[in-house]
Amino acid sequence: MLASIFDSIQKPTLLLNERHARENIAFMAGKARRQGIRFRPHFKTHQSAAIGEWFRAEGVSAITVSSLDMAAYFAENGWDDITLAFPVNWRQAQALGELAEKVRLGLLVESLESVHWLKSSAIPADIWVKIDTGAHRTGLPWDQPADLLELLHAARDLPVAGLLTHAGHTYGAPDPVARYAQSVQRMLALCDAVRDETDLSLQVSVGDTPGCSLSPNLGAVDEIRPGNFIFYDAEQFSFGSCRADQIAVAAACPIVALHPAQEKVVIYGGAIHLSKDCWTQDGHALYGLVALPTTDGWSDPLFGAYVSALSQEHGILHIPAEHMARFQVGQLVCILPAHSCLTAQALGRYQSLDGRWIEMFHSADA
Amino acid sequence: MLASIFDSIQKPTLLLNERHARENIAFMAGKARRQGIRFRPHFKTHQSAAIGEWFRAEGVSAITVSSLDMAAYFAENGWDDITLAFPVNWRQAQALGELAEKVRLGLLVESLESVHWLKSSAIPADIWVKIDTGAHRTGLPWDQPADLLELLHAARDLPVAGLLTHAGHTYGAPDPVARYAQSVQRMLALCDAVRDETDLSLQVSVGDTPGCSLSPNLGAVDEIRPGNFIFYDAEQFSFGSCRADQIAVAAACPIVALHPAQEKVVIYGGAIHLSKDCWTQDGHALYGLVALPTTDGWSDPLFGAYVSALSQEHGILHIPAEHMARFQVGQLVCILPAHSCLTAQALGRYQSLDGRWIEMFHSADA
Repeated sequence: MLASIFDSIQKPTLLLNERHARENIAFMAGKARRQGIRFRPHFKTHQSAAIGEWFRAEGVSAITVSSLDMAAYFAENGWDDITLAFPVNWRQAQALGELAEKVRLGLLVESLESVHWLKSSAIPADIWVKIDTGAHRTGLPWDQPADLLELLHAARDLPVAGLLTHAGHTYGAPDPVARYAQSVQRMLALCDAVRDETDLSLQVSVGDTPGCSLSPNLGAVDEIRPGNFIFYDAEQFSFGSCRADQIAVAAACPIVALHPAQEKVVIYGGAIHLSKDCWTQDGHALYGLVALPTTDGWSDPLFGAYVSALSQEHGILHIPAEHMARFQVGQLVCILPAHSCLTAQALGRYQSLDGRWIEMFHSADA
Repeated sequence: MLASIFDSIQKPTLLLNERHARENIAFMAGKARRQGIRFRPHFKTHQSAAIGEWFRAEGVSAITVSSLDMAAYFAENGWDDITLAFPVNWRQAQALGELAEKVRLGLLVESLESVHWLKSSAIPADIWVKIDTGAHRTGLPWDQPADLLELLHAARDLPVAGLLTHAGHTYGAPDPVARYAQSVQRMLALCDAVRDETDLSLQVSVGDTPGCSLSPNLGAVDEIRPGNFIFYDAEQFSFGSCRADQIAVAAACPIVALHPAQEKVVIYGGAIHLSKDCWTQDGHALYGLVALPTTDGWSDPLFGAYVSALSQEHGILHIPAEHMARFQVGQLVCILPAHSCLTAQALGRYQSLDGRWIEMFHSADA
């Protein structure tokens, strides 16, 4: 029965272990529930209405997305409390306004210009102020409360819900739990500073997969927004955010050539299937780890094996000599992707281990 | 008129300068024609039937693709001489056989196993033997003619057309012209070795964008297969393969946040729009260069500005202080992508500078 899934696979296909994914959801939902924290998972990872229902079964009613098109897709699929966790894009004013009439919509600002624009746009959305607590991607710097107070003053006629951060600097950090705690502490200190100067009581929204996975105590925050944890991936595994048997997706790819003398296997599965995301380890770029099909899914990653290079359609695997005999042209390997969010986006749909296709939102088609 | 294209853009959009693309095609087609070499362009870059017609206008009748689905798409769109430049994937036997009944199909082998498999499959395709002339991605090593002779002996009942290589080691090389010439010389030496031992007269197929763009003399080869040159991109420009005004695509992306103190601009345009491909320069990873909209397209890249990081939807631009005043939230920038093939694949269609949409093959949907 299970062998037949692999038998029918002809080209790169994203396999989804539903049991692992549901266990990952239950783990994070349970942790938030026990600590009295709202769980607003980031749906950018799976981008699938069908998979969204697995969250609903765990009591989730509020979600995070990363684009307006994704928000509209989930609104059409019955979600009515959506935070668009991306600095508001003025050029989508009309569609933002239309969506905000249909669902409770949260928007992000981090500049006076965007506050003034939102006031003039009259979009009926909750406002979250984006704070940079150390990831240095975007947001108001956590250590400059005067900037925040100026922004909040300008936003005084808008429905400001709170402060929001993405502690992305937990990724690959030697101590993600400490970094998560530091991020929370910086957010709470900012809220205190605001309370000292104004009558505003702001909510705090945090959330990243390493921090929320590994921290026993999520802190005195109002909501968490992790996303990647539903699938995890090879990078999270290498960082210690998850066990190998928590990884819920793998790309099944045909083997097309062997080069044993170079400890190399070539697969049909390249940048357009896996994405070109990678992490580095011992000076090597790793684009994924390598597992083998089993009767009930895929094996643990082979020790010392990894995806060493990707071009448009080719994947190059580094396979230590002791594993080489397990690879044959015409067979499949299961690649644990470096970054499951981007691999899911690239492959565009899932096949469950019992052979069902699970469709997702295609942002490229929207 | 032209300003109106930018006015209507709300989210990351791949702009295509048709004039530049047609000039790039004419340049390469003319060079091959004058040297009596077959021009079999790689269509993996543009993946569009409409753009394919621009090649037909330059006399092209044979093409290269990188997947069976792409081959089937172009076959449906009137192309009947197609080389699938990827090691043959046994798991697609049936569809390969069906396509080979409809068009002249070229397939790649590089192992005895695949030769034996092809003999048993009875797919009526031309066979090309993949040679590694130094790129070290895949293929039979150029310096081991005994391996090639053994493979050709096993393939003696198959219609072997010739030897094929991708001299990918020209990318970023200090002297791509010398590397291209070396790749050609290695292929011709292999053909001589084969002629000495057998009665086979093999064709030679080469081709990479840096080598074919920069080499005045393409050598005594039978065909070239460059692909990227139709659009070029920021990486090719940085390597010196093209001038800035030959780049034919740019991703127009909304500006969503400014951080002047950090010399940083945040755009809506991330890994899922641009791809995560990059090149390195002075120790920095560059995911693209930064230009500004003009009345007739986009400017030359701004000196010192580049895309410094990409997450799923966010792009982070490094913008030197002297350029910062030219950036405003709500406006657009034009990103010259690191790798145009992958950006085209990610964005999924083109908008011409006069506002027409040009559709392409979506491998994810096939």
